[in-house]
This record gives sequence, structure tokens and C-alpha cells, in this order.
Amino acid sequence: MNDTAFAYPHLFAPGQPAPAARFAGHPKFNFIGGHNDPTHIPSAELAAAADAVIRREGDKLAMYNLGLGPMGFPGLRSFVADKLTRHRGIKTTAEDVLITTGSGQGIDLISQVLLQPGDTVLLEEFCYAGAINRFRKLGATIVPVPLDDEGMKVDALAGILADLKAKGITPKFLYTIPTIQNPTGSILPLDRRLAILKLAKEFGFPIFEDECYADLLWQGGAPAAFYGLAPSQVIHIGSFSKSLAPALRVGYCVADWSVLSRIVACKTDGGTGALDQMVIAEYFARHFDEHISKLSKVLEDKLDTMFEAVEKSFGTSMQMTRPKGGIFLWMKLPDNVDVTTLIKPAAEAGLVFNPGPEWAVNGAAAKPFLRLCFALPSKETIQAGVAEFARVCHAVTGIPAQSGNVKLG
Amino acid sequence: MNDTAFAYPHLFAPGQPAPAARFAGHPKFNFIGGHNDPTHIPSAELAAAADAVIRREGDKLAMYNLGLGPMGFPGLRSFVADKLTRHRGIKTTAEDVLITTGSGQGIDLISQVLLQPGDTVLLEEFCYAGAINRFRKLGATIVPVPLDDEGMKVDALAGILADLKAKGITPKFLYTIPTIQNPTGSILPLDRRLAILKLAKEFGFPIFEDECYADLLWQGGAPAAFYGLAPSQVIHIGSFSKSLAPALRVGYCVADWSVLSRIVACKTDGGTGALDQMVIAEYFARHFDEHISKLSKVLEDKLDTMFEAVEKSFGTSMQMTRPKGGIFLWMKLPDNVDVTTLIKPAAEAGLVFNPGPEWAVNGAAAKPFLRLCFALPSKETIQAGVAEFARVCHAVTGIPAQSGNVKLG
Repeated sequence: MNDTAFAYPHLFAPGQPAPAARFAGHPKFNFIGGHNDPTHIPSAELAAAADAVIRREGDKLAMYNLGLGPMGFPGLRSFVADKLTRHRGIKTTAEDVLITTGSGQGIDLISQVLLQPGDTVLLEEFCYAGAINRFRKLGATIVPVPLDDEGMKVDALAGILADLKAKGITPKFLYTIPTIQNPTGSILPLDRRLAILKLAKEFGFPIFEDECYADLLWQGGAPAAFYGLAPSQVIHIGSFSKSLAPALRVGYCVADWSVLSRIVACKTDGGTGALDQMVIAEYFARHFDEHISKLSKVLEDKLDTMFEAVEKSFGTSMQMTRPKGGIFLWMKLPDNVDVTTLIKPAAEAGLVFNPGPEWAVNGAAAKPFLRLCFALPSKETIQAGVAEFARVCHAVTGIPAQSGNVKLG
Repeated sequence: MNDTAFAYPHLFAPGQPAPAARFAGHPKFNFIGGHNDPTHIPSAELAAAADAVIRREGDKLAMYNLGLGPMGFPGLRSFVADKLTRHRGIKTTAEDVLITTGSGQGIDLISQVLLQPGDTVLLEEFCYAGAINRFRKLGATIVPVPLDDEGMKVDALAGILADLKAKGITPKFLYTIPTIQNPTGSILPLDRRLAILKLAKEFGFPIFEDECYADLLWQGGAPAAFYGLAPSQVIHIGSFSKSLAPALRVGYCVADWSVLSRIVACKTDGGTGALDQMVIAEYFARHFDEHISKLSKVLEDKLDTMFEAVEKSFGTSMQMTRPKGGIFLWMKLPDNVDVTTLIKPAAEAGLVFNPGPEWAVNGAAAKPFLRLCFALPSKETIQAGVAEFARVCHAVTGIPAQSGNVKLG
């Protein structure tokens, strides 16, 4: 306790998270979160875009929301509408695009419009931790929908809905990441999208669709977004964190004005950061397709490196399915392994990963699973890190059994 | 109802705000909010700063928080620490500065750490609407502290605290804007700051100090911030909205790590927008004093224009005290006037203003008051707008009585 220490810790409200620790830098092998590739940030082009748009429109910075209303920078809203029309089968205009401060704010705002404590929501059984945590914090009951290699199992969803209906429960929404599912990397086929929309109509709930990764596809192909198929049933969100850079806090929400007008009304933040918006609009209006095409190739190459490294180090003791895009690889150790026992020894070896239980509605059932992000590290770091992870895993669990043959990086 | 209209409006959670209306542009005479002067945004310099900092550090954008931890861009944190040390009597370092997404996020985060429904907080009787609304929404009981031309009346505060104590109530905090009070424009003298700190210590609550306007002082002089006088008793926030541009969503929170570590732990937004932070740091590290000095002169000149225009149009029917800095003028019509009756006819004449009841803890008692912001409009628009306002006011209330002589713009 020093003489500047806050004198009123007894006044803190109950239920606080643990206090933050001082930031101590990143580990050598950083496989967590949604970072991107630092060697493929187009710094010179972004600098030129910033210079141009600020010289041209800098005087607008004097007003909240650039004086252009709470929906966001019009050039960026037009770009989003155009991108979604060209790539995601969505017919929309800038009028129905709201820019948000990251897609996380989209989740917060949509929750504010729809959720109250005690509500039931449906999520994919393995799902984005940020969504799970937000819905839990708001007091929602989360019902997991089983997944296979192509995404949600429609029959299982139908069974869950019948059970809920028997209990008199209508879910507030189904939150889904249908295109490059997080964490499994699957793409939901068109027939399942249509079947799920039919179930949603029958049981009377909207689909809350998160397409944060849909710009990063290896083969460029995915069925139309849910919102493109049935706009009256869907609220759609997306992000520039994965397609450009996560330090830029810019996402978007697309929906019919009858619900978007409710979402905007809850956005009381004085607007989303202007320069982040203006620079993305200026750069991507000219360079989106070219940037995405180049970045996807880089990421697929890194995925191949990681996939091979895991096969080489773990052999048959690690199950995985090659994702169809995105930035992460989801994998499973044998059923008796609890990956949470690896967290501490891995960290001591300078390695961090996302344990399955954090990315699952039912954490206990996800103990053998884990997620590695391959976008940030170099190919050499991926190889060395996976070998190191196998060494740690073997030391703790005896798996992989053949790790004695592995050459460590 | 069109065929894309959201099919589930019956699922909206109760207590939603009214839906947003489509943005329809700004009125001719825009005297509301905290906009700045568009003719004094240093666009060329900001463009050059953006170009330089993105070329130099753009690769960092690939990581959340620029890979530099959740506290914000270190260059900006250092600048804030230096600015507060030089101008506000605060001894701090970048280590105890958290960058926030506007000062509004600072209010949200600090509320999250301290407030729960039913808590009591103290506010200046006339106060920032955004703070009043946020605390109300969280279920706090707000007790107003009476003001005079120099800010909070210490004797009145002492009486309030004794009354609360008699009821067994300890306030969670006193939220105050001591330096260019919003809306009254006063600067709290040093002796009152010291007396209030003494009361806070005696009655056992922290001071939550908001210095969003403290960079804009006509004469450059203000007593040290509360946080500079007693860091263990105070949480300090500030903003770049007023000193540079409100479309940039960047503020800061300064406090001892024993409480700042709690505040950071609640910041789950993935970081504050990187470019807004980087560009402010790059520009202000070199040009802050020069920019502030120039901007303050421009604003004081506009204030003089507005003050004279109000005197000319309203004569003795409008009471006001010349503020000592900032961007707005607080004024009072005779007691029997209710300014809310002026809102609609003023809007029809293309004029918007902030009615007193929105900027007051006890709205009903503030009916004759209003706030006009002079930073955005040109001097000509200020003159014409004030004349127009007098015309509307006379038409509705008969006041100002002499308005027949006023030459309308």
C-alpha cells in the first residue's frame, strides 16, 4: 500500500472481475486470440489513404459522428453494402448498415434490444468465447446446438426446439457463425441454412448471424449469408478485424430498419472512432478484393504449415479437420486429456493457446479440445511452437506417445 | 410493413428507448452538444501525422491493442501523463493512464467498478446530461449539490453529507466537473477543492473528477485538479473531444493502479480505436500547446460574440455569467418561463439548443435555464441564431419584451 493507493476499495460493487495485471508483453509462441499477420498489413497504402481522406474531409472531425449521423461514415457504409451484395448474397444499401465499434459492440447492442435475464438463447456447442461470456453476463440461459464437420446438425436443432416448446420456451435468438465457424472452421451448407430458417420461422425466433471470418475463404465460395436468404428473420454482423486489422475497432450490423432503428437507439457512445472508419473506407473502396485475395493465400499457406506441423508432432493422437478459411485450427486430443492441465506448463515454455472449455457452451465436455491461431506467428514460429507444444503435452500427459522422435525447434 | 421488416418485434426486451429516426441533417442554427469549430481542425497537420505514424508503426495494427496491452497506445499515455503534470498539477506516469473510447466509456467503466442499483451518488445540481443519464440507468439515486458562480457550495455539501449520514447512507462517489463546469462554465477555487477533499475524507467517499474541458481556459489558469491534490481519494477522467475533435473517440482515465487495475479489467472492448489514438499522439506530442492556445483564442472570440448577441437581443431578461473557458454559455430566462415550450417552435425556425431540464439533476427546477454551444457555428451564425432565438422566445412567451427593436439576422 503506497500513499496514493485508492482509499475506498471497500466501496467496489460486488461481482467484479479479477484486477488486471500489468502488461508484460506477449509470449514467444502466441497462438491465442484473433491477431493477424503483421507482415501483411499494408502500412504504406493505409498511410496514403489516411493522408488523402484526412486532407479531404478532416474538417468533419469537428462534429460528433463527423456531422453525418449516428450510423457511421457513409463511405464505409456504402462499401459494406457493396461488399455484402457482391460476396454474401445480401441485397442491401448503406441505409441499413450501422457501423459499430468492433463486432463486439454489435453483440452488446443486439443483446440490449432483445435479451433480459432468464431468456434462453441457442448457440453452436463450440462457439466464440466473447459471445458466450456476454450472453451469460446478461443472465441468459445458453442451450448448445451440436455440430459436425459441416456445422449445426439440423435434426438435433429440431429436437432441441421441440423440447423447449414443450417447456413453453421460445428462444430469443439463435446466435451462429455459419461461415468459417469459430472455432471449428466449417461452412454451413445451403440446405442446412434453408432448413434452419424454416425451423426458426416455425418456432418463432430470429437468427443472429456473425460473419466475422466470411471474408477469408480459401476457395472464395460459401453459400449466401442467412441475412441474404431471409432478411426479415435475421440480424447480421461482421468486422474488419480479420480482413484488415484488429487494432482498428470497426465492425458493422446489417438489418431491416424496423430492428436496426432499435439497435441504433441503444448506441450511446458518441459514434465509432472516425479515423479507423475513414481509413478503412478509403483503402478498401479501391483495394478490398486484391487485399483479401493476397491475405487469404498467406493464411492458407500458414494453415498448411500448422496442419503439417501438428500431424508431424502429434500423429494420430490429434484429431482435426482442415478449416475452409479463417485464422485458426481446432483440434482434439484423446478423450482422457484435459487441456487445462497444459496451460501452465505451456506458458512456462512461452506458449499460449485457447483451451477448448473457453470456446464451448458446456466447458467440461470440451476438455480435450483446443484452438491454435496461425495468423500472427511466422511459419518458422508455427513449426517450432507446435513442436514445443507436443513436448509440453507429452511431459504432462504422455501424449503424443511418439514425441521422443520429434525434433524440437 | 415491407417483406424485409423484422418479423419478431414482440421479442424486444422491455424498456427500450424510442427507435432512432433516419438522420436528416443538422439545423441551420446548431447550438447543441459539444461540437467543435470545423474551420480550426488542423487537417493538413493531422494528415501528415497519420501518414508518419502509420508508415512507422502500421505493422502493429495486426494485433489487438497494437500488441501493446489493454491500457492504450504508449505514446498517447505518455503524452497524457506529461500534459497533466505540466497543466493540471498531477504527478503521474504513463503507467497509471488508461486510454478509453471517449470519456463516456470512462464513466461507464468507473460506474461498473463502483455502482450497484440503489447506491447514492452526488452530482452538481446542473451537470452533464450523459453522466446523469448513465447513473440513473444504473439505478443510482442522485443527490444534487447546489452551485454558485464558483461551483459547488461547500456548506451545502456539508449539510447534505450530514443528512445522508443520519440516514446511514455513504455516497459511492461525488461526480464533479470542477474545471469549466458543464454547463455553468465555472472554475472551482482551490480553497473549495481542499475543503471538499476534507469532507470526502471525513465522510468516506471518493471524488470522480471529469476534466473534459480543462484544456480550454481563456486565461490559462486553474487550480490543480482534485487528483493532483489527493490521488488516493480521486479517479480522474478527461477527453480529446474538446481539445481536438469529438469524432475522434478518445478519452483517458487516470488513477492509482489499485483502482485502475479494476477499471481496466472491466474494459472488454478489444481496445480503443488505434488510428484515433496514434494520430492524436503523433500530432499533440509536438503541437498541443500551440493548438490549444490558438483554439482557446478562437473560442473566446466566439463566446464574446455570443455574449454580446444575447445581451443585445435579450437585455436584462437573460441572466448569464461569462464562462472562464470551454465551449458553451449557460443562461437563465425569468422564473416563469419554461424553455421546453421553446423547443418545437425553435426547431421549426431551424434552431436547436439544450434545455436546462436535460442538464439538471432536478429537471423541473431548471425550466428557465438553457445552454448554447458556441464552438461550431460561425460568428455570423451565432449572431443570426441568437436573434432568431429571441424572436421565437418573444413569440411564445412575450420575452424579451423589447424584442420588437431587434434586427433579425
